[in-house]
Amino acid sequence: MKEKILIVGSGAIGGFYGALLAKQGAEVSVVCRSDFQQVQRHGLKIESHSLGNWTFEPAQVLQQAADYQGSADYVILCTKVLPGLQRADLIRAAVDNKTAIVFIQNGVEIEQELLDAFPDNEIISGLAFICCNRNQPGRICHLAYGHLALGNYPQGISSKTRRLCTLFEQGGITCRATQDIATARWQKCVWNAPFNPLSVLSGGLLTADILSHQESLVRSIMQEVCAIAAATGHPLPEDIVEKNIASTLAMPPYKTSMLLDFEARRPMETEAILGNAVRAGQRTGAACPCLETLYGLMQLRELQMFGQRAAAKR
Amino acid sequence: MKEKILIVGSGAIGGFYGALLAKQGAEVSVVCRSDFQQVQRHGLKIESHSLGNWTFEPAQVLQQAADYQGSADYVILCTKVLPGLQRADLIRAAVDNKTAIVFIQNGVEIEQELLDAFPDNEIISGLAFICCNRNQPGRICHLAYGHLALGNYPQGISSKTRRLCTLFEQGGITCRATQDIATARWQKCVWNAPFNPLSVLSGGLLTADILSHQESLVRSIMQEVCAIAAATGHPLPEDIVEKNIASTLAMPPYKTSMLLDFEARRPMETEAILGNAVRAGQRTGAACPCLETLYGLMQLRELQMFGQRAAAKR
Repeated sequence: MKEKILIVGSGAIGGFYGALLAKQGAEVSVVCRSDFQQVQRHGLKIESHSLGNWTFEPAQVLQQAADYQGSADYVILCTKVLPGLQRADLIRAAVDNKTAIVFIQNGVEIEQELLDAFPDNEIISGLAFICCNRNQPGRICHLAYGHLALGNYPQGISSKTRRLCTLFEQGGITCRATQDIATARWQKCVWNAPFNPLSVLSGGLLTADILSHQESLVRSIMQEVCAIAAATGHPLPEDIVEKNIASTLAMPPYKTSMLLDFEARRPMETEAILGNAVRAGQRTGAACPCLETLYGLMQLRELQMFGQRAAAKR
Repeated sequence: MKEKILIVGSGAIGGFYGALLAKQGAEVSVVCRSDFQQVQRHGLKIESHSLGNWTFEPAQVLQQAADYQGSADYVILCTKVLPGLQRADLIRAAVDNKTAIVFIQNGVEIEQELLDAFPDNEIISGLAFICCNRNQPGRICHLAYGHLALGNYPQGISSKTRRLCTLFEQGGITCRATQDIATARWQKCVWNAPFNPLSVLSGGLLTADILSHQESLVRSIMQEVCAIAAATGHPLPEDIVEKNIASTLAMPPYKTSMLLDFEARRPMETEAILGNAVRAGQRTGAACPCLETLYGLMQLRELQMFGQRAAAKR
């Protein structure tokens, strides 16, 4: 049986993972905005350092979910999480009662919005650990990593989740099914919360410069994330800060995703990563003054970049 | 008796206050670096919205303090306070045993360095509340305010301090002699500590935008400064945060001095204002996580702007 999958948001992440699923025989369609014509005519070219090059020709190339023909087993949302973007509206027209709603997106506490919108559907929350980008229309370059974590929300691992993991694993990447995806999100936030805003607010430093000059600040921010995670009922491993510091020291100097967006003057995932963490801290009473300072500063930086209108959305 | 005064650092602040003292009949000389020839030939043109326009012709125009002829009653240091600048070295050659050492400079806890270097001289610590700039060589534009606070360090008001106040007052500005200049420095820091770094790290916002969007962050930072000041033995008035918020709301939108330096790619007074406050907090055990975050970020911003060498000086 061929899985019917609709990818919504065919940027680098959506295009890459969709292409992997199609390679394993799934019937994969895509909704894409900016490079619709290019993808319709020529498909998506994938250039992967570890998996080789191939062309992904989607079953259906669509401009919106409402144009989807058929009944999707999975709708996989791969846009950024931004205040102005109503995620439920992007997928609603392609969701029926048997559709599992998957999202491969950044941030913490981003699930409730979709659970509220689709209370009778299975919700699969996913995190990508990947370095890839879309350099030109219809062309995606996969540079490093690729590991995924998937789990049902609020918890558990359904058979549909396991099936999706198997397809990704057969495609050549590591995909871990997790009973507790919310904890996995907080774990990723331990790294994202310091390095993403510090890279932007410093005016463009790479991870290695940030860590070698401000390790103690990075540690304070990481510890605040751990305290918030614990306060929300998702305690993280005791050695997680040490492990994040050690693995960042071992990485090549790295430009964060927020910095790439900043340099391209694209909206940043400030709210999904930092705003939601701060709100969780304030809700649970976990002190997070460093995160609050970074969050306030990122809002000012965005106000300066995008002006009053963008700031008012927040 | 004509006071003999040497101004070291004839930027906007030094030039303006030196010109005022000369107008009152003091014998004022200047050490200037960048516009030495211009000042030697044409003096300093002062354009003041409140005090009129005049030309200040210094008694001696010098390239360094060692060239000073005579015995100065006052040496007034008006440079910025920067890590690479040895303040005692700038004035030592013009200091004799009767010279009072005055500085009109920004920051907290900046006195000890000069007290250590000149243990037998009178030390007069001064703060300027002024908006003025040097738009072109030899020309200083005084835009607003002008109020000075002067006091002996560690405390008290000497007759030399009173005499200097009288000269400034006769020149047309308000000059307050204070028994406790260290407290006055912490009071000014309540405003400087939030608005200076937030204006830079936001990428260039004016005070009004910062305050209208992040009032709660501004208040948290101000409260941390109050806690540090109290811990160092200089408690501030209870209503000082409210008064600073209210007066900033009443001001026209304002570009901070750190932002002006940042935009001109000049070194910023991060250490004198923020670094010294954080060190005082750490020394006394007063928690200041917001200030530590801002300080760490400013160091990263400077690293990104000026590179490794400038950062290593800190």
